[in-house]
Amino acid sequence: MSENALLTRKADFPGMLNAEGQPWHYLDTAATAQKPQAVIDAVSRAIGSDYATVHRGVYGRSAEMTLGYEAARRRVAEFIGGREEEVVFTRGATEAINLVAYSWGENWLKAGDRILVSQLEHHSNIVPWQLLRDRIGIEIDVCPLTADGAIDLDAMEQMLTPQHKLVALAHISNVLGSVLDVKRAAGLAHCVGAKLLLDGCQAVPRISVDVGALDCDFYAFSGHKLYGPTGIGALWARADILDSMKPWQGGGSMIDKVTFEKTTYAPAPQRFEAGTPAIVEAIGLAVACDYVTDTGLDTIHAHEARLVAQTREALRGMNDVTVFGPEDSAGIVSFAMLGVHPHDLGTILDEENVAIRAGHHCAQPLMEHLGVPATARASFGLYSDEEDVAALIRGIERTKRIFG
Amino acid sequence: MSENALLTRKADFPGMLNAEGQPWHYLDTAATAQKPQAVIDAVSRAIGSDYATVHRGVYGRSAEMTLGYEAARRRVAEFIGGREEEVVFTRGATEAINLVAYSWGENWLKAGDRILVSQLEHHSNIVPWQLLRDRIGIEIDVCPLTADGAIDLDAMEQMLTPQHKLVALAHISNVLGSVLDVKRAAGLAHCVGAKLLLDGCQAVPRISVDVGALDCDFYAFSGHKLYGPTGIGALWARADILDSMKPWQGGGSMIDKVTFEKTTYAPAPQRFEAGTPAIVEAIGLAVACDYVTDTGLDTIHAHEARLVAQTREALRGMNDVTVFGPEDSAGIVSFAMLGVHPHDLGTILDEENVAIRAGHHCAQPLMEHLGVPATARASFGLYSDEEDVAALIRGIERTKRIFG
Repeated sequence: MSENALLTRKADFPGMLNAEGQPWHYLDTAATAQKPQAVIDAVSRAIGSDYATVHRGVYGRSAEMTLGYEAARRRVAEFIGGREEEVVFTRGATEAINLVAYSWGENWLKAGDRILVSQLEHHSNIVPWQLLRDRIGIEIDVCPLTADGAIDLDAMEQMLTPQHKLVALAHISNVLGSVLDVKRAAGLAHCVGAKLLLDGCQAVPRISVDVGALDCDFYAFSGHKLYGPTGIGALWARADILDSMKPWQGGGSMIDKVTFEKTTYAPAPQRFEAGTPAIVEAIGLAVACDYVTDTGLDTIHAHEARLVAQTREALRGMNDVTVFGPEDSAGIVSFAMLGVHPHDLGTILDEENVAIRAGHHCAQPLMEHLGVPATARASFGLYSDEEDVAALIRGIERTKRIFG
Repeated sequence: MSENALLTRKADFPGMLNAEGQPWHYLDTAATAQKPQAVIDAVSRAIGSDYATVHRGVYGRSAEMTLGYEAARRRVAEFIGGREEEVVFTRGATEAINLVAYSWGENWLKAGDRILVSQLEHHSNIVPWQLLRDRIGIEIDVCPLTADGAIDLDAMEQMLTPQHKLVALAHISNVLGSVLDVKRAAGLAHCVGAKLLLDGCQAVPRISVDVGALDCDFYAFSGHKLYGPTGIGALWARADILDSMKPWQGGGSMIDKVTFEKTTYAPAPQRFEAGTPAIVEAIGLAVACDYVTDTGLDTIHAHEARLVAQTREALRGMNDVTVFGPEDSAGIVSFAMLGVHPHDLGTILDEENVAIRAGHHCAQPLMEHLGVPATARASFGLYSDEEDVAALIRGIERTKRIFG
């Protein structure tokens, strides 16, 4: 799809109108994406006329729902270049990373082993490792950032040792939009025998991802940031690694045979999906993958890159505005205005029908590094356009007048 | 609402028609309930025109979504007689029980402590405790059943000791429909200083639940069995207990302050909701609570009891059919036909437009107790009617002719 054709897709998203039915300048897609009508319709059908449970019923509709659920797993796997037996459905990226921390971390790490994360990680890629540290006594090292806000792989090369068993990094920063050089990171991690986990939340909606080509070991992402439903996400892990992971949550569907004396477990990925899964949400996520693929990730990336460049240029032209992150940030621009708290900016912009995020973006260690308590963040999606950028800039100028 | 008025509600459920648009005899509500149009509409609105994230945005729609999400928590709490600060949203009952096993179990239990469960528990109320046993060395005792398939509280009274820290029981059996005398169970558990956890999956859609009056300590249930969306459920725990539980999953929203040296956590229930929650699903669950409350749980219970009585009576009149469970089973009838595997019965019934469940129902230890590899199970919902019972009986008679 061409970038021009893409602009007409805004009409596919009922959430892009405000309460008065007017276009809404929604610039918080990094927090969560609006959903195309195709996803909403798929959810309505799955929860309505098609509804049944999976993996258990002997009747036709349950068999069909099971086919739909497993087809969704195949679709999600294909979307990131993996195989269906390597994909575990989770509530989101957070649960996916916690699953790795418990099921892989507790099985394969021991006191004294080290994990390396970066200064720009989202809390979801920090706190699970801290909780693991509390349980088994590993150590956590923090890779610094380059001056423009990318993960400093030269520094990482110096820091990594054979004690490092895992490197856990954001594929794209949710605050700065900086894109990791994954192949280099994978080479460095594997060189010392460490696995590489990627938090792909901001990457899957913005750039084409192929886990095989990236040479990573774990890949986690959320459905709701990929134009899909809430309550669903996925962990991809290399088949041999997933096979080696112990159960985490116990319950129905993840067992082979239960007796009170001894219970045996199903193979992966079922072993990690205890209880009735988020059936409807998985089916909705597969439709979101279709929608994004049909639109084209290269088109989306080019489109967002252009909007980012326009935004950064306009902001740089303003006095008293600091823009964070690299020039080639993907879809996300964080900035600060001297003398104006980001929350105040966000509130004034809301009056102008512009929605941005103001806060620490679940990345407090990065805020500390930037030397600010919070930033303002504008983040784009495939439905964003130049009108949104213009409205943002107008709102910032008005704010400057109010606070000036 | 009167029981007669209730019969007209079938039209509220688009899932109750088969692929040809004809009425479908859906008798698998214990596996998952069909959804009323009100729930489907609420989900479509929340994922569409109302959609935004919660707890973070400074713009109006996010603030409204946050109000909606927290109102859903209040609604769910009210539905079971609890307080909003005592309700944690989970993916379902399975995750709720696993949360207790990790966050309460690992904090408050030690090697040698004992947990008592019953012979009729669902795997979701067995395997989490076995995984906890593997981690910290507790012991699990199994309370036997009475001859008609209820949990034998006389036996439990004899078994409980001061070493027992937790009693974990199904409020209503998912296979037999037997209803626990919760007040007596609570008295017995508390008498030795144990907490009482109830798996309320089959109870919340069938009988009025008031956690205060029941005097339990933990209550877990799934939304999808309560006519609500998939991917959502809840753990209720007494406020002082919830406050005493350590974090389980780490990530955004569950923290107070994150630094690499030391992270502090939010108060309950936020401490247990890491990451973007299942926002849309929580809002849909609240609407399901409204729908069930409007219908009236006393009406639903009386209606299902009448259908159970009709079914049991018809089955008892047949040669070579064994009916399991007590006479006063709530909404669920399990049975076996001599010489016919339940799966074959289920397949033939499917041809007759009747959907039952055939299998071990995620309760293999109960199957062992009953001396069968599987049962056939018919389970009712508020939309079930005498036509469904008649179609079931006709299908069983045809099966007898085929296998006779």
